[in-house]
Amino acid sequence: MIYIYAMQSFEDLSKKFVSYFDKRHFPEQPASLYEPNEYFLQNGGKRIRPVLCLMGHELFGNINDETMHLATAFELFHNFTLIHDDIMDNAPLRRGIETVQNKFGSNTALLAGDVMLIAAYKELAHIHVDRLPAILQLFNRTATQVCEGQQLDMDFESQENVSMDAYLEMITLKTSVALAASLQAGAILGGADSADLDKIYAFGKALGIAFQMQDDYLDAFGNPEKFGKQKGGDILANKKTFLLLYTLQKASPTQLQELRSFMQNEANNKVEKVIQLFKDCGVDDWAMSMQNKYLKEAFAQLDAITVDTKRKEPLKKLALNLLHREV
Amino acid sequence: MIYIYAMQSFEDLSKKFVSYFDKRHFPEQPASLYEPNEYFLQNGGKRIRPVLCLMGHELFGNINDETMHLATAFELFHNFTLIHDDIMDNAPLRRGIETVQNKFGSNTALLAGDVMLIAAYKELAHIHVDRLPAILQLFNRTATQVCEGQQLDMDFESQENVSMDAYLEMITLKTSVALAASLQAGAILGGADSADLDKIYAFGKALGIAFQMQDDYLDAFGNPEKFGKQKGGDILANKKTFLLLYTLQKASPTQLQELRSFMQNEANNKVEKVIQLFKDCGVDDWAMSMQNKYLKEAFAQLDAITVDTKRKEPLKKLALNLLHREV
Repeated sequence: MIYIYAMQSFEDLSKKFVSYFDKRHFPEQPASLYEPNEYFLQNGGKRIRPVLCLMGHELFGNINDETMHLATAFELFHNFTLIHDDIMDNAPLRRGIETVQNKFGSNTALLAGDVMLIAAYKELAHIHVDRLPAILQLFNRTATQVCEGQQLDMDFESQENVSMDAYLEMITLKTSVALAASLQAGAILGGADSADLDKIYAFGKALGIAFQMQDDYLDAFGNPEKFGKQKGGDILANKKTFLLLYTLQKASPTQLQELRSFMQNEANNKVEKVIQLFKDCGVDDWAMSMQNKYLKEAFAQLDAITVDTKRKEPLKKLALNLLHREV
Repeated sequence: MIYIYAMQSFEDLSKKFVSYFDKRHFPEQPASLYEPNEYFLQNGGKRIRPVLCLMGHELFGNINDETMHLATAFELFHNFTLIHDDIMDNAPLRRGIETVQNKFGSNTALLAGDVMLIAAYKELAHIHVDRLPAILQLFNRTATQVCEGQQLDMDFESQENVSMDAYLEMITLKTSVALAASLQAGAILGGADSADLDKIYAFGKALGIAFQMQDDYLDAFGNPEKFGKQKGGDILANKKTFLLLYTLQKASPTQLQELRSFMQNEANNKVEKVIQLFKDCGVDDWAMSMQNKYLKEAFAQLDAITVDTKRKEPLKKLALNLLHREV
C-alpha cells in the first residue's frame, strides 16, 4: 500500500522557512534602530516556532504565503523576547555572538526590541480577515503569557522557596505556550476544528514542558561535547531548575545542609559535588520519568487528532528529535 | 435657525473617556508585573490621544463601545512609550510622581511596558472585522514611526549638527503621527471616505507640529506659573529644540561663539543669557509665525472635510486651546 502525502519533515520545512525568512526585514533608515535588528536576525537560531507553525498547518492542509507571514510573526516575536531578555540579564553573548544590548547599548536594544514586536504584528496584518480575529486573539494572549513567564522567572531569582508547581507554571508561560500557540495558529489556517485545535495546543504545551525538562537535565547529565553547552552552567548560577527544586524536596537534612553550603560557596568542584547530590537523591531517574510522562501526554494528544496517522509522523519525529531520543 | 447635533466638546468626551478608562486594566497576578502598570495608569495624564480618537469618530458618526476600545488602545500605547522612554532617559519623575523604572527598577519597567503594548493590541481585537485590517495597519505603522522618532531623538543628542528638516521629521514621527492616527482611526470607525481620512490625518499632523513648537516656545518664553513647567528646562539640558536650531542658523559668528560658550559652561544665569540671545536673533517672532503657519495648514485641512461646519467646532476649539489661543 502506498501513501502519497505532501507532508514535509521538520528539516524540509525548516529549509523552506529559512530561505523565505533570509531577507532584510526592516527599512534602511534610521540605521541606528534597524541595523541592530538585522544583525540579530541574521544570526540564526533554530527557528523552531515558525516551523511548528508550518507543521501545524500541514497537519490539516497545504501551507501557503499566509502561513509564511504567520510563521514570521512568531519568529519575530521570539527574537523580540530574546533581545529584551538579554537586557534584563545584562547578557554579553547569545548564540555565540554579542547581544544587541552589549553591542549597541541597552537603550537601542530596548527600542529595537519594541519595533521587532510591532513588526510581528505587521506580519499578522497579512492574515485573511476570516481568520484574523482568532489569530490576533491567540497571539495577544500568548505574548502576554510569555511576558508573565519572564517576570515570574525574574521573581524566582530572589525567592528562597519556589514550589515545583510554581516552576512548572513559569516554564509553561515562558516557553511552552509559544510552542503550543505556533502549532495552533498554523492549525487555524489549516482549517482545524475546535476539538483538534485544543489537542494540537495541548500537544505543544506538553512537548514544551518535556523539552524544558530535557534542557535542565542536560545541564547536569548531558555530554557537553554533544550538546555544545557548558556543563553545570545552571548549577554554577544556582538557577532554580527542575533538578534543584526536586533535590531540595527530597534531600535529607544533612544533604540539604551540604547543598546549601555548596550553593553559598563557590567551591572548586561545586558542579561535580552538586551533581553527585542530585544522583544521591535520585533526581536523574525522576527527571527522565517526568520527561516520559509529558512526552506520553503529548503523543496521546497528537494521536487523538482526527487526521490520518501518516500526517502526524513529521511531528512525532520532531518531538523525539527535540528530546534526543532514537526515532 | 437651530442646529441640533450630538457633538460633544473635548471636555465632555474627556470626562466620558476618563470614566470609561478608570478601571483595572490588568489581572491581579503576577502582581510584580501588573502593579507597576496600574500604578502608572492611575496617575492620569491628559488623555489627548484617546479623546482625539473619539472626536475623529464623532466628526462623522456617533461613537460607541468599539470607539472606546480603540481610544483605549491609543492611550495604552502612549503609556507604553512613556514607560520605555523613562527607562531610556533614566528619568526619576513623570507627571510629578516616580517613574516606573525609578520605583520598580528598569527590568520590571521594561517588561511592564512590553505587556502594556500588547494590551493595546488586545483592545484592537475588539474592533469589528470589517474595520480591523485598516485599523491594525494604521496602528502598526504609527507604532513603528513613534519608535523611529524616539531613536532619532536619542541620535540627535550626540550629533553636533541637526538640520531643521531633520528635527521636523523627528518630532513628526515622535509626536504628530500618533495624534494624526488617533483622529484618523476614529474617523475610520465613523465611516469617513478616503479623501476625508487623508484630511483628518493631515489636520492632526500639522496640529501636532504646531503643538510641539508651542511646547518648545513656552520653555523659553512662557509664564512658568501659568504652564506649570520649569522655565528654561530645555535650555539647561542643551536640548535641540526649534528655538535652538533656528538660533544656530541665524546667529552672527560672535553670537554663535557666545551661545556655544553658554552651552558648554553651566553659568549661573545661563537661561536668561540664552533667552536674550534667542530674542536678539528674532526667534520668538519666528516661532510664533511658524506655529501660525502650521495651525493655518491644520485648519485648511479641517475646513476641507466634507461634513457640516458645525461638526468641526469642537476640534477647532480644541486646537486653539492646545495652543493657548483665545477661542
